[in-house]
Amino acid sequence: MMITYENEFWFDRDEEGSRVFQMFPNVFGDTRGNFTEIFKEDCAGIPDWMMTSSWIKQINRSESISGVFRGMHAQQGKSCQSKLVEAVTGNIVDIILDARPQSSTFGKCMCFELSSEKKNRLFVPKGFLHGFFVRPSDTKVSIFQYIIGGSVYDKSSEFSVNPKTVLDIIGKTSIHVTADPKILRELTGNDLTLSDKDTNGKDLVEFLEDVKHEFDTNSTLWYK
Amino acid sequence: MMITYENEFWFDRDEEGSRVFQMFPNVFGDTRGNFTEIFKEDCAGIPDWMMTSSWIKQINRSESISGVFRGMHAQQGKSCQSKLVEAVTGNIVDIILDARPQSSTFGKCMCFELSSEKKNRLFVPKGFLHGFFVRPSDTKVSIFQYIIGGSVYDKSSEFSVNPKTVLDIIGKTSIHVTADPKILRELTGNDLTLSDKDTNGKDLVEFLEDVKHEFDTNSTLWYK
Repeated sequence: MMITYENEFWFDRDEEGSRVFQMFPNVFGDTRGNFTEIFKEDCAGIPDWMMTSSWIKQINRSESISGVFRGMHAQQGKSCQSKLVEAVTGNIVDIILDARPQSSTFGKCMCFELSSEKKNRLFVPKGFLHGFFVRPSDTKVSIFQYIIGGSVYDKSSEFSVNPKTVLDIIGKTSIHVTADPKILRELTGNDLTLSDKDTNGKDLVEFLEDVKHEFDTNSTLWYK
Repeated sequence: MMITYENEFWFDRDEEGSRVFQMFPNVFGDTRGNFTEIFKEDCAGIPDWMMTSSWIKQINRSESISGVFRGMHAQQGKSCQSKLVEAVTGNIVDIILDARPQSSTFGKCMCFELSSEKKNRLFVPKGFLHGFFVRPSDTKVSIFQYIIGGSVYDKSSEFSVNPKTVLDIIGKTSIHVTADPKILRELTGNDLTLSDKDTNGKDLVEFLEDVKHEFDTNSTLWYK
């Protein structure tokens, strides 16, 4: 068997496949190096909905230098995505934020360290915003890979939330922070390298107010 | 669109999905690093049979130090696999050998360089033996990833062919070698690091004779 998943992190659930959890592949090491199974159809011990190949809609990979922040991203409506994210090389601090207006953990976020050494992965359900950054103290290029369920890339439904507006509230809303305080200081105390698209992204507080209002008045969820 | 595939290499075909070809993803680079799409369902321009998610049965990754050779591997019968292989970091010399007894290119092999810089990938159809090595002159660890179609890992149908018996005939049988002569000298002139399983693998010539005999007498293909 390839994978065990350990801790489940406390965010509210709204349906099957909406819990946040960490996965560890088995790593088979010898004098040559090591070998891991990243995905296997019908793999025992893993949720059925994930381990059928039809779950996979897209696989992306990015390389990022020290100080880069990519996010916070999501796709709306029927193009909404869930993600299984990992660091293939180096270390990544992953940030997820529960943006499901009917959730008891609405607006809560989590920072989580992913490393190529541990080979841990994080499952990010639909309805969450997702981003990650490479700490300024990490001098190597980090390779980040994610398997996407739900939908392929759809430019018309894609949006960014400006990470600066997320960092403004981080620490106030975190519900489970495995990243140590030093990482949080690095995250909030440095000029992170962002794309123009992310810099010009939505304001988090406004976004959350909008989706909450839409849900309260029309029972409409932005991610369905 | 994510991927273009360039050259097709001349090996005989026996059905759809049995040609050998190289793929290049589009690489979107900026000051942060770069971004590539590794797989996308229903991606225009790519063979239909590959770009549906149900093609993916398994995804594996290995890390190998300088001088390691992994292979030559295949699975038999209904568990036979096709593979889309790439180097995520470093450089890899990939070796494939046509082991389809009814093929006009039966017994022919190809050495092919895959690099994380070029981000090129090679499609290896069913009926081929596959292996790769990290050149002794490459001092970094190379990460190799492959997406598998056809079947998940099945220990009972898996086998190795001893790479030394492949290297004995390399150069005599090559039909398209993109690797430069220096690489071939490194491949044949060094003590490569192998697993016990691969060291104790089948003898290539005997294997080819057996599968040819089985096809000639019973019309049975080892990979179907």
